[in-house]
Amino acid sequence: MQRHFEQELGELKEKLLTMASHTEGAVTLALKALLARDDELARSVKENDTIIDELEKEIDEMAINLLTRAPLSNDLRLITVAMKISHDLERVGDEATTIARRSLELSQEPQLKPYVVIPRMAQMGLEMLKQGLDAFVQRDPTRARAVIPRDKDVDALNKQLHRELSSYMIEKPTTITRCLNLMVISKSLERIADHATNVAEDVVYLYEALDIRHTGKSGSRRPDQ
Amino acid sequence: MQRHFEQELGELKEKLLTMASHTEGAVTLALKALLARDDELARSVKENDTIIDELEKEIDEMAINLLTRAPLSNDLRLITVAMKISHDLERVGDEATTIARRSLELSQEPQLKPYVVIPRMAQMGLEMLKQGLDAFVQRDPTRARAVIPRDKDVDALNKQLHRELSSYMIEKPTTITRCLNLMVISKSLERIADHATNVAEDVVYLYEALDIRHTGKSGSRRPDQ
Repeated sequence: MQRHFEQELGELKEKLLTMASHTEGAVTLALKALLARDDELARSVKENDTIIDELEKEIDEMAINLLTRAPLSNDLRLITVAMKISHDLERVGDEATTIARRSLELSQEPQLKPYVVIPRMAQMGLEMLKQGLDAFVQRDPTRARAVIPRDKDVDALNKQLHRELSSYMIEKPTTITRCLNLMVISKSLERIADHATNVAEDVVYLYEALDIRHTGKSGSRRPDQ
Repeated sequence: MQRHFEQELGELKEKLLTMASHTEGAVTLALKALLARDDELARSVKENDTIIDELEKEIDEMAINLLTRAPLSNDLRLITVAMKISHDLERVGDEATTIARRSLELSQEPQLKPYVVIPRMAQMGLEMLKQGLDAFVQRDPTRARAVIPRDKDVDALNKQLHRELSSYMIEKPTTITRCLNLMVISKSLERIADHATNVAEDVVYLYEALDIRHTGKSGSRRPDQ
């Protein structure tokens, strides 16, 4: 019975990593669609989002089922953290859909200028997410802790881009629609980094049994805009 | 022992309602600060957010502690739903802080025009939240279910306002900064309604033991922008 439980716990973790890989893929594709102005790719991101949603539901069900049989409090903690991570991943998937949707709007007009900050933000957010999930798999709270301060850098890039786009709009009102779409994309990327930070904080909590959220030290979970 | 458990479960529910009342209060105050252009009030919303964050942590700890001792699978479901609701409330608190922050920026310039759609969106979101929480207390999934379709109405108002503000910006580029702040506030209100919808869906799930999220029927959890 106990062995069966352990096996199911392993399956829960595996499903979470499958979900993570779909989510990372969605963000990557959404960015690719934006940069290549590829409408078909953008539409595929939106369609794939249902797979991520389904995985979240499956993980929730597995987790609830396992909770009823968890023998140790450490297992309970792992299961609840898995549910939280899954929820954050689902939200990352939603942000990928938002980016894809806005890319479709952007591709209807000429490109404003080469995108520099946006791919950088995307890369940073994806790295943070990957590192948080690696820390989860490797039971490494130190690695997870290193993710948290990076959230501020992504916040700073979002604010910088927001300022640049605001000035641009004032100078050339014909660019307003495109600037607004880019602002939404930038905000989505900033939120992806927020979710990655949540994942990292949950991993720290899981393995250090210490709640470092909302202490202000991490600089995360504060609403940015 | 069992009686003690029941008592603690009751305390968990009570703490959740305390948190809900703080959260609703924060949104109400943020709106008041916006409409009255009251900077002091806006700053108080930001400060009070730490209370909401603390309550979320306390609820998480109580929940984890209770999970280890939950005798029935219905209790487990209740506890995990309480954690989810608490997380949504914390996010609503963050949105209130965002509204307060943007109100501070808006009060530095003359008011663009009388606010009509924004107070309406706020009222709708707060009503949805209140109804979802009432349904939780009264164990009434039908009441919770009624919340879900209203999310579309708030989405529609956000889109309408977004369009209006976009046109306004194009006509009068000097209003761009104010329009952007109002767009962020409108989006925050739309997100509050999203969180209220999540709460309602969780209550339906809790009492109907049926996962209606992501089915597309509800029209919620879809990223709007």
